[in-house]
Amino acid sequence: MNPGIDDLPVRDELRGKSPYGAPQLDVPVRLNTNENPYPLPEPLVERIAERVREAARGLNRYPDRDAVELRTALAAYLTRTGGHRVGVENVWAANGSNEVIQQLLQAFGGPGRTAIGFEPSYSMHALIARGTGTGWISGPRGEDFTIDLPAAEKAIAEHRPDVVFITTPNNPTGNAVPAETVLALYDAAQAAKPSMVVVDEAYVEFSHGASLLPLLADRPYLVVSRTMSKAFGAAGLRLGYLAAHPAVVDAVQLVRLPYHLSAITQVTALAALEHTDTLLKYVEQLKSERDRLVSELRAAGYEVTESDANFVQFGRFADSHATWRRILDRGVLVRDNGVPGWLRVSAGTPAENDAFLDAVRDLKKEQEQSG
Amino acid sequence: MNPGIDDLPVRDELRGKSPYGAPQLDVPVRLNTNENPYPLPEPLVERIAERVREAARGLNRYPDRDAVELRTALAAYLTRTGGHRVGVENVWAANGSNEVIQQLLQAFGGPGRTAIGFEPSYSMHALIARGTGTGWISGPRGEDFTIDLPAAEKAIAEHRPDVVFITTPNNPTGNAVPAETVLALYDAAQAAKPSMVVVDEAYVEFSHGASLLPLLADRPYLVVSRTMSKAFGAAGLRLGYLAAHPAVVDAVQLVRLPYHLSAITQVTALAALEHTDTLLKYVEQLKSERDRLVSELRAAGYEVTESDANFVQFGRFADSHATWRRILDRGVLVRDNGVPGWLRVSAGTPAENDAFLDAVRDLKKEQEQSG
Repeated sequence: MNPGIDDLPVRDELRGKSPYGAPQLDVPVRLNTNENPYPLPEPLVERIAERVREAARGLNRYPDRDAVELRTALAAYLTRTGGHRVGVENVWAANGSNEVIQQLLQAFGGPGRTAIGFEPSYSMHALIARGTGTGWISGPRGEDFTIDLPAAEKAIAEHRPDVVFITTPNNPTGNAVPAETVLALYDAAQAAKPSMVVVDEAYVEFSHGASLLPLLADRPYLVVSRTMSKAFGAAGLRLGYLAAHPAVVDAVQLVRLPYHLSAITQVTALAALEHTDTLLKYVEQLKSERDRLVSELRAAGYEVTESDANFVQFGRFADSHATWRRILDRGVLVRDNGVPGWLRVSAGTPAENDAFLDAVRDLKKEQEQSG
Repeated sequence: MNPGIDDLPVRDELRGKSPYGAPQLDVPVRLNTNENPYPLPEPLVERIAERVREAARGLNRYPDRDAVELRTALAAYLTRTGGHRVGVENVWAANGSNEVIQQLLQAFGGPGRTAIGFEPSYSMHALIARGTGTGWISGPRGEDFTIDLPAAEKAIAEHRPDVVFITTPNNPTGNAVPAETVLALYDAAQAAKPSMVVVDEAYVEFSHGASLLPLLADRPYLVVSRTMSKAFGAAGLRLGYLAAHPAVVDAVQLVRLPYHLSAITQVTALAALEHTDTLLKYVEQLKSERDRLVSELRAAGYEVTESDANFVQFGRFADSHATWRRILDRGVLVRDNGVPGWLRVSAGTPAENDAFLDAVRDLKKEQEQSG
């Protein structure tokens, strides 16, 4: 007997599905997963090795289940950069913001409950909803990819979701959501029924504007989620975190797997946080490269969505997957997120961005010659 | 407004609950969480630092989502020690066996489905069932803590669970489940309906007997779960894994969070696997210490459950929590798992075990003097 997945008693909603994930292709220029192109600086690499060596000597013991030292350091970082005082009791950390979101949905979503996001947005929100048995509602976005507030308020009033996701800057479109929109959605959600509102700020360090952390004051149903994957250049570390009222932190502790965060992960993240200032300088470089991508793409005749992230959505294409393939043929991997007419490119190093810009200028020329 | 958990819209089944976890107390002798008392050998510590340094240089990139190198090394370890050939396609890894079990329940359990375990057993099975919306059935165990096969078969036939957990060696009781019992339960589960049978072998390296890995041949609904927390002395690493038919590995990939396993975790586990032979020597020492605990506890007048694990269940006590406290007063932390009349002690170093044995002999003396 040699069964496939469908011969096993998997849940019906998983039948015929494929695992999530961008293609991991070996291509000279990879600008498809919004990674930070700058390797960690060598002094930080050494510091990580040093802290891991120390932690490895106690690896036979379980890690600090509550990750107090790490949460304290994350709180200090948020307080310093986010315009709002945050303490250890406001912060929770997990293996990537995906696990943070999974824990939030296990606590506040789940069977018989629903969550809404305004799509296109970070597709893992919907997938983690499915994985936790939470009903998913695809909320509307305008033609220009901003959140159409009256339509969004109407969707919330109609569906009365238990969890509302607002991604800002939004992925894959790149644009930020104004604070007033977030406040209006929060009020709409509370008017419908007490709902948790999760503001996913994975890319906020790249924004022209400020973090929405100050909105946490007096809003116990608000959660801001963050990650070290992008601004801290540590996608390989898998460290996501949230800031919220302490009661939210208490609630996720009821569903978190005990000792979910390894001792090695905790000290590696702590080492990276020691080097915050250096890492934020790379962020400044990436912001100016992102701005350059926007202006050069426009100069080359492409449409571009305003970006506050480390990536840019550009278009439009009659067949975006065919265009994705033609860019790949030129050695540059961008992302087809399934938004009809659009593709997404991550801001890389200046040389990587040049390679990308050359490729897409080339496509325009070909198009003009054939047209 | 300063709400507590119950003022938030948490799921009803979480209200009034406390987070799982043994007390993390600062006590001279900690024998409460079945940790391996031997720190990793210094050459392995250095090797971890070296591999992590190398991985940290690429930490800005996402890790290998499929952890192929690590799964290949785990497969080689299982093939060498488990009496059954296992390939990379049979193995899956996650952040602790808890996450492995969570993924299995997300794929094969979940809302509208049920899982059964034979209790007392590893309490996380029931808690992860709750966290994934899977109904939990507490199956029976005999007075002597063995699985009462006719009663267990009856429970399976009656409840027709979607997932059957068999922990062997069992935690917290310590005894192993004979292969024939596992086979009979597998057949009972398949007769009731196609169900997944998960054999949790977290402690199998400490067993007098062999792993049940060979049972995987021609049994696509069987899963064997393992961990590096115990035999590899790496509780702080959080590395659990499973072996099963490749279709099972495909199925968990539909529910796993993408990039769930950090690059740092992957290389740390690989370094530990390079030192397998040294670590398994510590296992041999712990097995003989475990056997010493059994015989010395019996000599001191305690009842002891047969143990194939790195811990020993001993009793009986009219008030086991009061006895737990009296042992703690003597500087030794053991575990009260809530099994009436019994406590559990992990096998520590010879000196730690001596301290424990002195404490419990002391209690017997006091009892005799007062009685």
